[in-house]
Amino acid sequence: MDVHRKIEGLNPETAAQAHKRDLEVQDKYGVNYMHYWFSEKDGTVFCLSEAPNAEAAAAVHKEAHGMLPDEIHEVKSD
Amino acid sequence: MDVHRKIEGLNPETAAQAHKRDLEVQDKYGVNYMHYWFSEKDGTVFCLSEAPNAEAAAAVHKEAHGMLPDEIHEVKSD
Repeated sequence: MDVHRKIEGLNPETAAQAHKRDLEVQDKYGVNYMHYWFSEKDGTVFCLSEAPNAEAAAAVHKEAHGMLPDEIHEVKSD
Repeated sequence: MDVHRKIEGLNPETAAQAHKRDLEVQDKYGVNYMHYWFSEKDGTVFCLSEAPNAEAAAAVHKEAHGMLPDEIHEVKSD
């Protein structure tokens, strides 16, 4: 799970556009961005992905739209 | 989405127990804890819920196991 903070101009459209770019780029990094959640109130975005490692997940974001996450956590789920 | 940080002794069993307690308590607060993700590496837990407001979501955690979140964000999803 990665966390982006204080994203300027965050709204459903800009979030969807960024996610679409991630999906277009991710395959070559072996990453799968599955879900995202965003707060228009405070500009926070949570992105859940399957990735070989944190670096690969960040590399997708970097190439797709340049918005690197402030945090990346290797998580398990319920 | 709420975020707990530096939870001591976090592992699949303790995470599941805490979530189970949330489920037992949540109805009276009108909250539904749907998913959680946790990092054993750094003790971070992400909890996704539907709730009337942030206070209700926190009240469930408080009564269920006392682990109040460090952050709560009102989020929309893809």
